[in-house]
Amino acid sequence: MGEKLALGLDLGGTNVTGALATADGKIAAITRRKTNAARGSGPVIEDMAEMVEQLISSKGISRDDVIGLGVGAPGPLSHRDGIVFKMANLPGWTNVRLRRALLERTGLPTILDNDANVAAFGEFWMGAGKGVRQMVALTLGTGIGSGVIIEGEILRGHFENAAELGHLIVQAGGRQCSCGQRGCLEQYASAANLARHCVELIREGRESSLASILEKDGELGAREVVDAAKAGDALAAEVWDEACYYLAIGCINVQHAFNPQMLVLSGGMSKAGDFLLARVRRYAREQGWKLCDDQPEISISVLGDDAGVLGAAGMAWAARNSGVFG
Amino acid sequence: MGEKLALGLDLGGTNVTGALATADGKIAAITRRKTNAARGSGPVIEDMAEMVEQLISSKGISRDDVIGLGVGAPGPLSHRDGIVFKMANLPGWTNVRLRRALLERTGLPTILDNDANVAAFGEFWMGAGKGVRQMVALTLGTGIGSGVIIEGEILRGHFENAAELGHLIVQAGGRQCSCGQRGCLEQYASAANLARHCVELIREGRESSLASILEKDGELGAREVVDAAKAGDALAAEVWDEACYYLAIGCINVQHAFNPQMLVLSGGMSKAGDFLLARVRRYAREQGWKLCDDQPEISISVLGDDAGVLGAAGMAWAARNSGVFG
Repeated sequence: MGEKLALGLDLGGTNVTGALATADGKIAAITRRKTNAARGSGPVIEDMAEMVEQLISSKGISRDDVIGLGVGAPGPLSHRDGIVFKMANLPGWTNVRLRRALLERTGLPTILDNDANVAAFGEFWMGAGKGVRQMVALTLGTGIGSGVIIEGEILRGHFENAAELGHLIVQAGGRQCSCGQRGCLEQYASAANLARHCVELIREGRESSLASILEKDGELGAREVVDAAKAGDALAAEVWDEACYYLAIGCINVQHAFNPQMLVLSGGMSKAGDFLLARVRRYAREQGWKLCDDQPEISISVLGDDAGVLGAAGMAWAARNSGVFG
Repeated sequence: MGEKLALGLDLGGTNVTGALATADGKIAAITRRKTNAARGSGPVIEDMAEMVEQLISSKGISRDDVIGLGVGAPGPLSHRDGIVFKMANLPGWTNVRLRRALLERTGLPTILDNDANVAAFGEFWMGAGKGVRQMVALTLGTGIGSGVIIEGEILRGHFENAAELGHLIVQAGGRQCSCGQRGCLEQYASAANLARHCVELIREGRESSLASILEKDGELGAREVVDAAKAGDALAAEVWDEACYYLAIGCINVQHAFNPQMLVLSGGMSKAGDFLLARVRRYAREQGWKLCDDQPEISISVLGDDAGVLGAAGMAWAARNSGVFG
């Protein structure tokens, strides 16, 4: 009998990533496939099961050496019941019993959670938050996803919907969010809204080096805004600064709600590195309270795109160790 | 040997309340004294120890029948170390080892927590949140205190400063708070700010039935604002409505952070009952997201002023049951 390994699967709109990980968080094997989401849920689940078999046979190990399977997927979904209710960017996923489907196909005890929770768990287990017991992760992408770890456990909430921190209202009556609220954090500080805000200001007639890119491509990305801000473009710098300011407000709210030791920023915008971090930290100091010094350390994701798959495998280890897998 | 009982003490700026409670949350005896806070910490601690002896002898029970002592106190303080760092309205409490002092004087295993956590635990144990596993309490007084219960346990955070929900920023760049931040929830929705806001508007020349009370008394209280709003005073109604709106924003942020089953409103303002609850619920529906129906039930404190002392005793029971008391 060889070393025990856990399997992780991270289902995304573009790729599915699978990995085998040791109990101390080393990746023993990793594989990636296009999701080809347009096929609907059935063929995607078959692919996921195939990736499990492929990973096991690639390492020449016995199924008995795999302690279980952790799966991260876009939600909304129920961890408790193992059901995906729907997926924002993947058609044909309505009330799919993903956990049971994978358990039946692979024979492995399986655990399911949403991608933001799983990525947060990865950073907690083996990334920026290694050694920390209380951690919050914010993933800055189209929206702002988040996961909260309290004493080493994912916070799920009564309705399994905790840690929707992109929808904290930081500007009551402010910008309209697609969720129906006004003034959500993600309307001010996500990658997509960073770009959208630039486009709006250019269309209002503001000058910017980004205008020519917008005219050529018909759209702007967060990376172009960051590059222009770094190069001294006044409009890009202003919009970037505003995003950092609001992100700091979000960090302050995380501080007062959960009081974690560490707050990890991940996702596309976090690739700006210190250009993001220095400003967010400065604003968090400036705008935060002065009653005591309980600000979490704000840091950048260490695992990047592997946070999800490693977190999924780590979740399987945690389930095994706490007896969830029997 | 008689029925086992736990002791609870709730230290406030005006009164100290002590009680003996059974394992199923019945109050077997209760007593109250003026704090006389001006005397400083030593005499107040002597009084607290005396109240313990008095409660024990009043029931004619043996010390062995008391499983331990739970204490709630204004903070900031450390639950872990049993130290009160200082107290907002009580002089002479700098770095006082309150837990040890009471343990030495009473011989009882002792546990200390801040008053907001203890009151939340009371509502969770025997009040509005009885039977609920995930609950958040907001106490609407001078500021907004709060306590968060997750799976039956008080959330404390890495710096022991979790659940400072009165300082969630809901209006970035908004009203200045004494904590150093701008736009804190409590600047819009606490009892003291309700009254203060009315005074400001009257001094700016707005007409109101409250103007004569202000002229006579030199100040206004939240109760007078509520009474005037109920009686149809336009200014009072406007200010009350704004407070309810922001309180709903706070409830929405609690929903997205912790996703509890229940949110309990307590403190002075909660005495307005349905006049508060109906509006806050309506605004929470209106202003909340439409992606799924995961709003907590918003309700009013059942225990009122007894939440603290009962929560303190309940905390002692919880410490005993989880082995903290050995």
